[in-house]
Amino acid sequence: MTEFELISKIASQFSQCDMNGWEGIGDDCAVLPISDGKSLVISTDMLVEDIHFLRNAATPYEIGYKSLAVNVSDVCAMGARPTAALLSLSLPEDVMQEWVAEFMEGFSSLCKSCGVALVGGDTTASKERVTINVTIIGEAPSQNIKRRSAAKAGDLVVVNDKLGASGAGLRDILGGRCNTPEAQAHKMPRPMINEAVWLGSCSQVHAMMDISDGVASDVRHIMERSRVGAEIELAHIPTDYDIETALCAGEDYKLLMTISEDGFDRVAEEYFALFGERLYAIGHITDSCGELRWVENGKTAEVDFRGFVHY
Amino acid sequence: MTEFELISKIASQFSQCDMNGWEGIGDDCAVLPISDGKSLVISTDMLVEDIHFLRNAATPYEIGYKSLAVNVSDVCAMGARPTAALLSLSLPEDVMQEWVAEFMEGFSSLCKSCGVALVGGDTTASKERVTINVTIIGEAPSQNIKRRSAAKAGDLVVVNDKLGASGAGLRDILGGRCNTPEAQAHKMPRPMINEAVWLGSCSQVHAMMDISDGVASDVRHIMERSRVGAEIELAHIPTDYDIETALCAGEDYKLLMTISEDGFDRVAEEYFALFGERLYAIGHITDSCGELRWVENGKTAEVDFRGFVHY
Repeated sequence: MTEFELISKIASQFSQCDMNGWEGIGDDCAVLPISDGKSLVISTDMLVEDIHFLRNAATPYEIGYKSLAVNVSDVCAMGARPTAALLSLSLPEDVMQEWVAEFMEGFSSLCKSCGVALVGGDTTASKERVTINVTIIGEAPSQNIKRRSAAKAGDLVVVNDKLGASGAGLRDILGGRCNTPEAQAHKMPRPMINEAVWLGSCSQVHAMMDISDGVASDVRHIMERSRVGAEIELAHIPTDYDIETALCAGEDYKLLMTISEDGFDRVAEEYFALFGERLYAIGHITDSCGELRWVENGKTAEVDFRGFVHY
Repeated sequence: MTEFELISKIASQFSQCDMNGWEGIGDDCAVLPISDGKSLVISTDMLVEDIHFLRNAATPYEIGYKSLAVNVSDVCAMGARPTAALLSLSLPEDVMQEWVAEFMEGFSSLCKSCGVALVGGDTTASKERVTINVTIIGEAPSQNIKRRSAAKAGDLVVVNDKLGASGAGLRDILGGRCNTPEAQAHKMPRPMINEAVWLGSCSQVHAMMDISDGVASDVRHIMERSRVGAEIELAHIPTDYDIETALCAGEDYKLLMTISEDGFDRVAEEYFALFGERLYAIGHITDSCGELRWVENGKTAEVDFRGFVHY
């Protein structure tokens, strides 16, 4: 059973439950409308030693930073601003106080720079290996919240940065080169909160999510939730690395979105004026529900890229 | 460093951060006022295999049930009603699909009976051992929310059920007797939502929390947060077991509260009429800040009970 099969099985067990006002599983965050046209969003992520990080390849500061960063990214994916976090830590005996102190430095430095309050948590022992769980909460005007289900045929598929640095960095780390710029990109992804909140306010932006498993996997989630297809032009993928790393390695924590074709130029211009960065159109949404077509200079490419497979 | 020292160190690192409207660490849940006089409460708990549960001593159903139950108890502690949960699971390869399915049965059965929606989660691999993290959200009229900091000198210290069954049950389990009624009480504590929500609505109830580490530890949290002392009458502890098990073993997940002395009789009468159960006055709050005095039939008892120590 893959992670996605397990999640869909779990979701089906709960399909008849009252959601108490929450909009549930299927996006990067769950959404709760609260008042005055505002909504809360919430998400949770677990990071496990030797699965998500290696204690000898990353400093505790970097691990603390990243465990919040990947959660902030989930809130950004909805066009929301993160406001609060809860942190659970299980620590084996061989973890020193210094490790925990440095971990908390990394975590709290990003809290401060992102304006996130730590409002709760749990610490416990473990027999072996560190496990970290972060729950993140964000807020946005309800009408700004972006979902995976809002893509429309004809939309452009857009990413807001170059792809692949994190994947290349993971290769570096596994090869023992832990301090390359790419390794840094892998260990300390920069949250794009202001960019995400601004994109949330643009009505031309339809669907949005963060790129955690690679575009090759993530675009399929938008297709599935929006009941559409997509055509991706390989020549348009912005990357400094090989195309497979760019599309499949994941953990870039950039934004993947669809934008109405006639709205794109204006959004991209304003985005550049505000943030000094480009938006990259890499393809478009089609009405061939479930069909993902890779093209190279207009011709079908005989490739079958898949994103990161969790297990 | 104990868990409580670690938490207070972490909290101090964040003491200068903007809380974004949240009332932070110090109670069983963090509190966010939302609208129309309502507040959300939120809490998180991590359960680690071989620390909090043994896979060969509890069924996956029981583990799934309890991982939600202990979180529901944190919401009840505030006088709030649980509404939503997020579940993170890390699973080693030797965990079978059947284990996960049965775990989810236990978790979802309690979700249903408590009216809790599962609104998000994360599943991931682990190298060894199961780790479970649950984040729980609840709701209450803001004026009903009970805090540890609200005890007043002269209040009675009250528990809403007999104590010690869970501790006796843990002894049974460690001795290989996994199916005694006490072992059941340990593995499947019954959440007291309606009782807690009703107690939340009583203005005579001042401070409240759940009994997770044992009264001997938990009453100290109320003392510390309320800057008061307490005198506990050993002869009044309601239990079918020895007094140390009743006061120190923890995991009873009953409610510990303080009630104004002149309001107690009325609250206890109505409580009995509504729920068919007694409230037990076990002592009173004093103005000797930080001083916990054990008495036996009115005389100082030379004992020094401590609650469960996490690590």
